[in-house]
Amino acid sequence: MPTYKLTLEYVGTRFAGWQVQPDLPTVQGELLARLRRLFDAEDLLVAGAARTDAGVHARGQVASFDSERSWEPARLRRALNGLLPGDISVAEVAMAPPGFHARRSAAGRIYRYQIAVGERLSPFLAPFAHHHRDPLDIEAMARGAECLLGEHDFSAFKAAGDVSTTPIKTLRRSEISIEGDVVTYTVEGTSFLQHMVRTIAGTLLDVGRGHRPAAWVGLVLGSRDRGRSGPNLPARGLILERVLYDGAPAGSLAAPSTR
Amino acid sequence: MPTYKLTLEYVGTRFAGWQVQPDLPTVQGELLARLRRLFDAEDLLVAGAARTDAGVHARGQVASFDSERSWEPARLRRALNGLLPGDISVAEVAMAPPGFHARRSAAGRIYRYQIAVGERLSPFLAPFAHHHRDPLDIEAMARGAECLLGEHDFSAFKAAGDVSTTPIKTLRRSEISIEGDVVTYTVEGTSFLQHMVRTIAGTLLDVGRGHRPAAWVGLVLGSRDRGRSGPNLPARGLILERVLYDGAPAGSLAAPSTR
Repeated sequence: MPTYKLTLEYVGTRFAGWQVQPDLPTVQGELLARLRRLFDAEDLLVAGAARTDAGVHARGQVASFDSERSWEPARLRRALNGLLPGDISVAEVAMAPPGFHARRSAAGRIYRYQIAVGERLSPFLAPFAHHHRDPLDIEAMARGAECLLGEHDFSAFKAAGDVSTTPIKTLRRSEISIEGDVVTYTVEGTSFLQHMVRTIAGTLLDVGRGHRPAAWVGLVLGSRDRGRSGPNLPARGLILERVLYDGAPAGSLAAPSTR
Repeated sequence: MPTYKLTLEYVGTRFAGWQVQPDLPTVQGELLARLRRLFDAEDLLVAGAARTDAGVHARGQVASFDSERSWEPARLRRALNGLLPGDISVAEVAMAPPGFHARRSAAGRIYRYQIAVGERLSPFLAPFAHHHRDPLDIEAMARGAECLLGEHDFSAFKAAGDVSTTPIKTLRRSEISIEGDVVTYTVEGTSFLQHMVRTIAGTLLDVGRGHRPAAWVGLVLGSRDRGRSGPNLPARGLILERVLYDGAPAGSLAAPSTR
């Protein structure tokens, strides 16, 4: 059965997250409704690479589904974009290799957390950043972020309700950058625990404020104790940037994407 | 009586424009309510440099008001930003020279109109750009934009209901630029007729689509006939960038602005 791979962009503000929930607007729910209509299949199911929480945005979420029905990728992309609400957009549709699954096949995810620093928050940035009034020690935050590189037990940064099978994760990138008034934490990992990126960002924010030294981040990690890490920062500052797949890019069979 | 000058930033999406209207959310209305509270004056009035239409955004709108009551500028800015909704922000508060009036003292305004080109519109850009699917002839648009420079009768680009005293306006800048998928029309003029920037943008879009040659823009201008110009493009692509004042900047008495 052919497998389709979709790359999606969305502004998460009004959604109760990726995962479908009864009576709540979700990205998966909006997508499913359109796919079931276009494929005329009430039992069609779609998997997402990352279960983004309520209010989290995505520049490159990946979804997959199987269907016997054949749609030319570019035509399907246009049809979906004609039907989806303005806060969700399909950047690419591709035919995936046999056995491809958006979540299970994913080799990594890249997230970005944005903190806008300064007395006031620009209304143009407000939906996409956490606001922090006072100056931050960027150097210290960067050193703190580095402590998390590599394979570790990330229990100290997981949500109480997290259902992951293992808290052992590998971070291949964990860095702080600044552009204008916006401090960005960029992290690439195999996969993530629930709230992990936002709790790391909150822990780094405590370092940036001077409440804790950079090396404290390593101690929190080593403690595996959620009671020791910083606050889980608001969802609106978090953006799923990209999902990574090993080997030949799953999109290699696709018609060339416009834009 | 001291005159205060405010520089404002707003996302216009949910507002019925700048100007206060009964039972509708307006930027002036939101601002007035907070100023009357802070200055404890039910008769306080605030003037805006530009009456932006419903849905139009601003990066640098300027407002002014008079009050006997004294507020330290930075303190007033913080107090206003603490009270205003997240889609309006005060970038600067300054004491203005005697006789200053945000609209009457303004020597010029700079607007930007954004057109996002491509098969799909990114949800991150959607609130701030008009979407156009097909490629545009940027060179031709730029040449068309140049035809409007200088002093002219702009009747061909004015709204039916416009109440300006004169259709004679001077454009000091009228240019097209492109960055990524976004084509921007930037215009600086003494003042503007209602819908003027959006109708010029619609006329340039007709040129960019190849429906009309660049020189047609000059013919439309010369005709002074609204029936000959292009469509009035949607408000969401329009941003009031800056208001210009002659001589010493009116903000020169201000405490240095943080942000």
